[in-house]
Amino acid sequence: MATKIIELEKPKLKNPLFIEGLPGIGHVGRIAAGFLVEELKAKKMAELISSHFMHYVLLHQSSSVHMLKNELYYWKAKGANQRDLIILIGDSQSIDSEGHYEIANEVLSFVKKMGTKEMITLAGFGIGESKEKPRVIGAVSDMDVIKRYKKFDIDFDAGSKIGTIVGASGLFLGLGKYYDIDGVCLLGETAGYPILPDPKAAEAILKVLSSILNVKLDFGKLEKRVKEMEEFIKKFEDMQRKTLAHLTARGDKPEGDDLKYIG
Amino acid sequence: MATKIIELEKPKLKNPLFIEGLPGIGHVGRIAAGFLVEELKAKKMAELISSHFMHYVLLHQSSSVHMLKNELYYWKAKGANQRDLIILIGDSQSIDSEGHYEIANEVLSFVKKMGTKEMITLAGFGIGESKEKPRVIGAVSDMDVIKRYKKFDIDFDAGSKIGTIVGASGLFLGLGKYYDIDGVCLLGETAGYPILPDPKAAEAILKVLSSILNVKLDFGKLEKRVKEMEEFIKKFEDMQRKTLAHLTARGDKPEGDDLKYIG
Amino acid sequence: MATKIIELEKPKLKNPLFIEGLPGIGHVGRIAAGFLVEELKAKKMAELISSHFMHYVLLHQSSSVHMLKNELYYWKAKGANQRDLIILIGDSQSIDSEGHYEIANEVLSFVKKMGTKEMITLAGFGIGESKEKPRVIGAVSDMDVIKRYKKFDIDFDAGSKIGTIVGASGLFLGLGKYYDIDGVCLLGETAGYPILPDPKAAEAILKVLSSILNVKLDFGKLEKRVKEMEEFIKKFEDMQRKTLAHLTARGDKPEGDDLKYIG
Amino acid sequence: MATKIIELEKPKLKNPLFIEGLPGIGHVGRIAAGFLVEELKAKKMAELISSHFMHYVLLHQSSSVHMLKNELYYWKAKGANQRDLIILIGDSQSIDSEGHYEIANEVLSFVKKMGTKEMITLAGFGIGESKEKPRVIGAVSDMDVIKRYKKFDIDFDAGSKIGTIVGASGLFLGLGKYYDIDGVCLLGETAGYPILPDPKAAEAILKVLSSILNVKLDFGKLEKRVKEMEEFIKKFEDMQRKTLAHLTARGDKPEGDDLKYIG
Repeated sequence: MATKIIELEKPKLKNPLFIEGLPGIGHVGRIAAGFLVEELKAKKMAELISSHFMHYVLLHQSSSVHMLKNELYYWKAKGANQRDLIILIGDSQSIDSEGHYEIANEVLSFVKKMGTKEMITLAGFGIGESKEKPRVIGAVSDMDVIKRYKKFDIDFDAGSKIGTIVGASGLFLGLGKYYDIDGVCLLGETAGYPILPDPKAAEAILKVLSSILNVKLDFGKLEKRVKEMEEFIKKFEDMQRKTLAHLTARGDKPEGDDLKYIG
Repeated sequence: MATKIIELEKPKLKNPLFIEGLPGIGHVGRIAAGFLVEELKAKKMAELISSHFMHYVLLHQSSSVHMLKNELYYWKAKGANQRDLIILIGDSQSIDSEGHYEIANEVLSFVKKMGTKEMITLAGFGIGESKEKPRVIGAVSDMDVIKRYKKFDIDFDAGSKIGTIVGASGLFLGLGKYYDIDGVCLLGETAGYPILPDPKAAEAILKVLSSILNVKLDFGKLEKRVKEMEEFIKKFEDMQRKTLAHLTARGDKPEGDDLKYIG
Repeated sequence: MATKIIELEKPKLKNPLFIEGLPGIGHVGRIAAGFLVEELKAKKMAELISSHFMHYVLLHQSSSVHMLKNELYYWKAKGANQRDLIILIGDSQSIDSEGHYEIANEVLSFVKKMGTKEMITLAGFGIGESKEKPRVIGAVSDMDVIKRYKKFDIDFDAGSKIGTIVGASGLFLGLGKYYDIDGVCLLGETAGYPILPDPKAAEAILKVLSSILNVKLDFGKLEKRVKEMEEFIKKFEDMQRKTLAHLTARGDKPEGDDLKYIG
Repeated sequence: MATKIIELEKPKLKNPLFIEGLPGIGHVGRIAAGFLVEELKAKKMAELISSHFMHYVLLHQSSSVHMLKNELYYWKAKGANQRDLIILIGDSQSIDSEGHYEIANEVLSFVKKMGTKEMITLAGFGIGESKEKPRVIGAVSDMDVIKRYKKFDIDFDAGSKIGTIVGASGLFLGLGKYYDIDGVCLLGETAGYPILPDPKAAEAILKVLSSILNVKLDFGKLEKRVKEMEEFIKKFEDMQRKTLAHLTARGDKPEGDDLKYIG
């Protein structure tokens, strides 16, 4: 079935800025974008499902199931110094290279139709140790973009360390060129242990983001939000690990139904 | 070739209830749905073949071969308190994530065209030990559905244990939302050893199911049916394991013809 | 690019019998079908290339390269007791399940258009030891077919050993049903060591085949043919093994150019 | 999204010769083709991106990102004894067999439309040891091509060593047949250690190439160019290895964002 975007609402947006925050290292991008959605009370406009996500559903407390999906939210500017936003969050990134490209193309094509010309992607940046004050490192789709973000607290020395950005945050930025959407990737420094969500790195990104967007965020609530997310994240990552190990390491039972307890 | 549904008959059905029971943990769903097809003398209406099944055929006693396939059966209500049914059984689930999504979408699209608005998916639920009286645990596509099933002997506390449902039974339930088909997944508690079919867990599900559907089932025959299935299941699982191990662990001979003796 | 059949000639054939012999255990099917093509001086009518073959080319003595491909040959009946034939041989089978289904479907669809209603697939049958007089075991697409082949020296007890046929010979037979093409699979008993081509098992199949087809074959040439094939087969299998090991076991250098010496 | 070719310019070319040089063993083909592009000041006419490349972007010194891509350049003949050229270079080859076929087909279809009837593919040829004077070995799409290249310093004994050419250089040559594009593959002898770019093997190829094309190349600059490339190549290969190891060996974190320091 490939990748499907199901539209729930068709808002009229004015030159919207697209913000991407999917799960990744320390779940930095996911936490930051999710918090933005909550704080701004952004509205859901579309859901994305894909056969490049794992083949299972998650159970809620209510015993209702939840497909792995990505979600697009929008928010309309309240003041003159603000901009309309489209925010992408989700449970998962693609489990293969092909899906990464497919999903990024589908989403970029969608936000392009909504009038998007600019994006900010949010991610973690593994440095192998925890930092009291994690920095926010910036990468751009092309050099001109740096000018626009110079005045913010972003370290644009990333390139000097010669690196790569794996997954959605990098691909969206790179593929944007073919959709005339330029932008910046904000990477919050994090230890890089995959299991632990890192709210501090997310907070560092959110501080920069609140300046860029001219929106106020109640950082007091962030820690509480992260607590709520932790259980979900733990369940998801544990499942993903087990299912992948299942499929790749051994030959038995790739098909089947399984219900796992955690904690 | 992706996934193909080959229609054999086009029955007119009235608001049919869709029941899914494919192989999985303890083959609980497969045994229960297969027994239902036998007991109700349901008629085959379609076959599904897919390039997401393993690339081999099974040999019958008669020396004739048998493609891996899923099958759709229908049954027309005999009484006023009964409903028309469409039942999905099969030899196999997809061997990759992409196929799981593709097959679920193809089947849901098919049963939707037949007028389906509601489904029951059947599966096992691995608890790591055998139980004298396995419970039936329920998960729903959305919370409202619980009301419809409250009066039956189903434990709707699944969500409190925080889990996931891997494979067809979960995906059908989750994807149903995009086809306006809601429903419940009935999970029979089973030890979870993949090789052994668990008729007791299947019986627990079938008891609940016979109340829901208002049909009488002769449980005396169940054990005999399971015996007949065991040889087939053993052959299938053994082959699947060997073929997958073949393809993934070593680099030699992914192509080729092979005929294996078992038992 | 999926799978492409490139037609070279469009012969008019009368109710042609389709014979499949691709590489597999002991290369039994491949040797038998290749020998038939040589002995009958069958003409090439089409080539099949597929992105489900490995991504390399083979070098001939002449320094010219050779794509991995399958080939379709035809032969017109010379006498009243003979039939027109279409024979499929090739360098390789698909390297994944999906490709196996895709290629079988493409070929069946092609031979169906040529008027085919019947097929014979040729394969090896691993028994773990060498036999002085390997038997030919038969599997059929449906029970009625056995009658047609009862008078030949084929053991139709295969089913009693409960097994599976992996790869092309099985899938062609199974999928044939959806193209109204029925048939038999002839499996020559072979030790099953993948590296060694087994001309004795191929000869056993060819003897049965020459009776069925009413054609005379000069078995004196068979050993010479096999010698000529051996070098090619060794090169191919060695490369396949190395390339697969390359791709799966380690993470380095899946891309790249490589030229290997053998022998 | 499969594979996309994005045209940047539509030059009119006269019977252009197509030259392929993508990364591979010792990066021989990539270095040679890249140097040709630089020395001839060839112009970029198209970019190719593919979901069969790895799912990450590379960071430049400037902190701008760079999608993995292939690039097509053209050069117009300056003299009567020269020919118009189309040159393919790139960061990466496909990471799977299917992509290799898809990309080769897309590119061949593209250059065919530009009037191409002939090609030269460039690659390394691993011999397990360094040589003071690496030879250039030739393989051809069909035997007639050898005549055209006999007068140049190419060893056409490759076939006698019985081998294969893995990846783009081989596939382009083999698939060319189906596009009526014939040609030669020039393989520079190299030790075959994957990490180290081998400018000496590239130089050997370039010397032959400059005779064939009647163009002068300043080989004094070659070493400097290779130095500049080395850092990029190291980063790319290291990342590729890590990402693949990540995806295949363990089950954890196939999704995610990652920024790696190297050197």
